[in-house]
Amino acid sequence: MNFFQKQFSLATKRRGFHLITDEVLSHFPEIRTFSVGMLQVFIQHTSASLTINENADPTVRLDFETWCNKAVPEGDPDYQHDYEGNDDMPAHIKTALMGSSVLLPIKDGKLALGIWQGIYLGEHRNHGGNRNLIITAWGN
Amino acid sequence: MNFFQKQFSLATKRRGFHLITDEVLSHFPEIRTFSVGMLQVFIQHTSASLTINENADPTVRLDFETWCNKAVPEGDPDYQHDYEGNDDMPAHIKTALMGSSVLLPIKDGKLALGIWQGIYLGEHRNHGGNRNLIITAWGN
Amino acid sequence: MNFFQKQFSLATKRRGFHLITDEVLSHFPEIRTFSVGMLQVFIQHTSASLTINENADPTVRLDFETWCNKAVPEGDPDYQHDYEGNDDMPAHIKTALMGSSVLLPIKDGKLALGIWQGIYLGEHRNHGGNRNLIITAWGN
Repeated sequence: MNFFQKQFSLATKRRGFHLITDEVLSHFPEIRTFSVGMLQVFIQHTSASLTINENADPTVRLDFETWCNKAVPEGDPDYQHDYEGNDDMPAHIKTALMGSSVLLPIKDGKLALGIWQGIYLGEHRNHGGNRNLIITAWGN
Repeated sequence: MNFFQKQFSLATKRRGFHLITDEVLSHFPEIRTFSVGMLQVFIQHTSASLTINENADPTVRLDFETWCNKAVPEGDPDYQHDYEGNDDMPAHIKTALMGSSVLLPIKDGKLALGIWQGIYLGEHRNHGGNRNLIITAWGN
Repeated sequence: MNFFQKQFSLATKRRGFHLITDEVLSHFPEIRTFSVGMLQVFIQHTSASLTINENADPTVRLDFETWCNKAVPEGDPDYQHDYEGNDDMPAHIKTALMGSSVLLPIKDGKLALGIWQGIYLGEHRNHGGNRNLIITAWGN
């Protein structure tokens, strides 16, 4: 049983959903040494999220942003936590809906994703800045 | 530390939420050999989901479908990804809301679920076809 | 590779979101012995949830409750599962949205959370009573 763990920052992204599978894997060439295992990707922030979805058509990512903005509106007068900007409290809720981590099976030195699956970063702030990830893998 | 990993297809399900705990466990009789560990069930698709919920009353699964259809409506003219059918883009969003995997503790050769918990498949397409799962377990 | 597993009950909480990081860690002093690893916190119920979010301002937790109550309204006449109280079916759906577990990296004997991250319990019933958790950790 081997363990691997690494922290790094993602290149800054604008608000919206972004496909980051290749960027994550560029920090984990050691995946080739795992014949079976798991990889967790964890984001150390509460206003940006990680999820898994369609890796081909960029309009899917645009529609994720559109849906999120309707489902979690900005400027709801019922929010009490409103002093960090109109995008802040909705960003916290969107993060909880999408999730703070993804857990992916590893098989034969590669992620065992479906052909259409990729890792999404959801950047929910207008100016989120750098986002720190910690990746942990374990297996044989 | 032992690792177990297996890929298989679920029997085709109609659109809606389905209890699949027994079907998953039928592919994993080796669970008896784990005194402590974890089981991840991962779905290799972006328009069907996995989550955990109430395992007794089938109307709970019907109400999940009802709520999802209201929260993520079909035919929103703001969707840009609309060429795969009205059910496609909502299926992607529902998948992100519910999740693409569940991670379950194993104790004494069995899943350590609460008495009312079961694994749900959310089939979000009208004609989703076969769905491939990969299950990975590790423990002692 | 070491495994650790423990079941315990949380002190009863009122309906709403609660920060439980310290309460969870009070049951896991053995975290100090892990230089690298993972901790899963799993709730054995279908009407209370676990998620990760902002650990500082209590109004964030209030706004989570406000948003959940709007997004998953009580008393929708379309619900078929309505005989356990108006808060029951919404509690199941909120649990699926927020999640039944969190998976956290361990580094140098501590949770590798971001500075603003904490573990939330979402108590979605009016009178949920005691909630049982099972925590499982593995690592070196």
